[in-house]
Amino acid sequence: MQYLKDGSITSVKGFKAAGIFCGIKKAKKDLALIYSTVPCNAAGTYTLNKVKAAPTLISKKSVNDGNLIQAVLVNSGNANACTGEIGFADAFKTRDYCADKLGIVKESVLVSSTGVIGVPLPVETMLKGIDAIVPALSEEGGLDAAEAILTTDLKTKSFALEVLLSTGKVTIGGICKGSGMIAPNMATMLAFIGTDARIDKQLLQSLLLNAVNLSFNCITVDGDTSTNDMVILMANGLSELSVSEGTEDEKIFFDALTDICTEMAKSIVVDGEGATKLVQIDVKNARSIADANLTAKAIANSPLVKTAFYGEDANWGRILSAAGNSGAEFDPEHVSVYFDDVAVLLPNYNIVIDEVTAKAVISKYEFTVTIDLNAGNYSVRWWTCDFSEDYIKINARYRT
Amino acid sequence: MQYLKDGSITSVKGFKAAGIFCGIKKAKKDLALIYSTVPCNAAGTYTLNKVKAAPTLISKKSVNDGNLIQAVLVNSGNANACTGEIGFADAFKTRDYCADKLGIVKESVLVSSTGVIGVPLPVETMLKGIDAIVPALSEEGGLDAAEAILTTDLKTKSFALEVLLSTGKVTIGGICKGSGMIAPNMATMLAFIGTDARIDKQLLQSLLLNAVNLSFNCITVDGDTSTNDMVILMANGLSELSVSEGTEDEKIFFDALTDICTEMAKSIVVDGEGATKLVQIDVKNARSIADANLTAKAIANSPLVKTAFYGEDANWGRILSAAGNSGAEFDPEHVSVYFDDVAVLLPNYNIVIDEVTAKAVISKYEFTVTIDLNAGNYSVRWWTCDFSEDYIKINARYRT
Repeated sequence: MQYLKDGSITSVKGFKAAGIFCGIKKAKKDLALIYSTVPCNAAGTYTLNKVKAAPTLISKKSVNDGNLIQAVLVNSGNANACTGEIGFADAFKTRDYCADKLGIVKESVLVSSTGVIGVPLPVETMLKGIDAIVPALSEEGGLDAAEAILTTDLKTKSFALEVLLSTGKVTIGGICKGSGMIAPNMATMLAFIGTDARIDKQLLQSLLLNAVNLSFNCITVDGDTSTNDMVILMANGLSELSVSEGTEDEKIFFDALTDICTEMAKSIVVDGEGATKLVQIDVKNARSIADANLTAKAIANSPLVKTAFYGEDANWGRILSAAGNSGAEFDPEHVSVYFDDVAVLLPNYNIVIDEVTAKAVISKYEFTVTIDLNAGNYSVRWWTCDFSEDYIKINARYRT
Repeated sequence: MQYLKDGSITSVKGFKAAGIFCGIKKAKKDLALIYSTVPCNAAGTYTLNKVKAAPTLISKKSVNDGNLIQAVLVNSGNANACTGEIGFADAFKTRDYCADKLGIVKESVLVSSTGVIGVPLPVETMLKGIDAIVPALSEEGGLDAAEAILTTDLKTKSFALEVLLSTGKVTIGGICKGSGMIAPNMATMLAFIGTDARIDKQLLQSLLLNAVNLSFNCITVDGDTSTNDMVILMANGLSELSVSEGTEDEKIFFDALTDICTEMAKSIVVDGEGATKLVQIDVKNARSIADANLTAKAIANSPLVKTAFYGEDANWGRILSAAGNSGAEFDPEHVSVYFDDVAVLLPNYNIVIDEVTAKAVISKYEFTVTIDLNAGNYSVRWWTCDFSEDYIKINARYRT
């Protein structure tokens, strides 16, 4: 498999997109439209927050009802969250208007929003935006769309990957956004992925769920989950190459999908608010996958661990203590901790830390912390960033 | 009940204490001893971290085995955590030496440590310290002891409270420390409380557990739990006034104990690393106490909520979203949020925020956030601090 330079969702056969400024934000692009020339099988994963925004619930229902999906309308600058009945009416209004302009059935259009919460969607502004964006759709519009879905992100996040199946080449392309899980005004994690492979809906959902569990669900910036989080995968079949359950091609496609989801997820961590480092957390030999994830999450979210990364302090004690607080079952005396391949703690509290070597590792922009729990056979990999004064500044001062 | 000026554990009849510098730290006081002229019934609560320091385990066993307790030896500057077999041998050595010098049985001496982890206790230094501290014990030594147990704390934490029972007056006095839950080098939450009331061991344990659940267990600075956390309550009976189960005096004593534990807990939050505000979190009408605590903890620990407090941003959305991530069961449409008595969110997403009034509340040093889940009949009260750039600085730069 091979990543394409400047790749995006429009690197995939049959996908068009556009991103424009319509007036929800003050000046930056704020409306994106993704469109497939033919209807797609679609799969999705959505926020687990009890508080779910109207567009999230509407799109989830459309996908779960088994509709073929042909377009996704995304706005930034307003999350349409905590807006009650009006929020649903507004989301439907923009969705139906967009479907009408595209000449497709309304249930084939998904809607997604990100930005401030508790403020009604500026519907009239958006309808005018829809008038403008539909004719702007193009096969080169992927990067514009990627730009239009950003909020506090500093960088556009866009990828495309060519995958060689046994029968020929298919493409997976996607755009995403996110820099704090809900910060500063519920900035959301959104990802929209397209492929020209032919995949039935049930398999598509299972592929996406598993890929998300190894990528987007393994990252954290600040441990929070937004009201609007959403990952959508659309397969339009235009390559005429099929991926079927139980085949070698399924495995090849799954690995590629996981890879691109991981790259997208890491691009979000790297762009985390105030982040100066990308840290991979490898938890090894946990008693179960659940225990491994508990441990990784506790380490990846601990303010003490993250400030130590920022301060380039090889503080294995904070890592061990975060693991000890995670709820995972293990015996602290059997644990090892490594910074890259440098052991700092071996079983029976055998402390082998060489401050100079350890500091050399964590002074890098990117490094791996490995914690071997020695309690079972299950391992997971997470990614996190460090925690700097800028995180506080961005989140304390945003609205003032 | 009435708090005493400059009160401490030595405000309680029969308690002596001392705090000295013995050489574990560079210059500040680092060794404390608390002593009761007669043996005490004792109760304790201890860290739930899987990683427990040797002194924590030794003291827990002494109390749980039913020993009468007469002294507590506490050092700061070294946590004796993650030190394996040597850690246990060292802790026993200092305990037994101290008991010998005091002329009491070794199981009647508790040991407690706080400071850097993974470094063996400087035993010889401590033994010399014990030689010096035993003759220094005095009825005025409470504040010195309170100072000697500090690590990154900026302020000494010491309280005493006179309680009027139906039969006469008893006193409760205590000292504590803590400023990050385990930061920066596992700075620990420790509290040592004495009373001259006569209370049997079983009731004492139950009173302490319940009081701790309403105070020390309802505070958070950074969501972490140390390897050494410990709260000890000792009752020497020297007032000759009894507190017995099922009496009105039990209720009076419990309320007073909860009150002093709450004051101690709040003094830790106020001294939180980088804290500039003390925020009370009242969760009302949850479906269960567990749900209420989940909600309060999620709000009190959310970096987004805490940075908004620091930035004096009346961001009810972050509060609602943190509740939505807590795992508690509720319907977001039924929730109300108040800053002090100013409503900012009412049911059905009725947003009544008046930015000027709301900002006036959260610009204060101390205020209350109330979230009414409207889901049941259970309420809890927590305390947290805000999250400033100084938290990052203290924790990133401490060892450099």
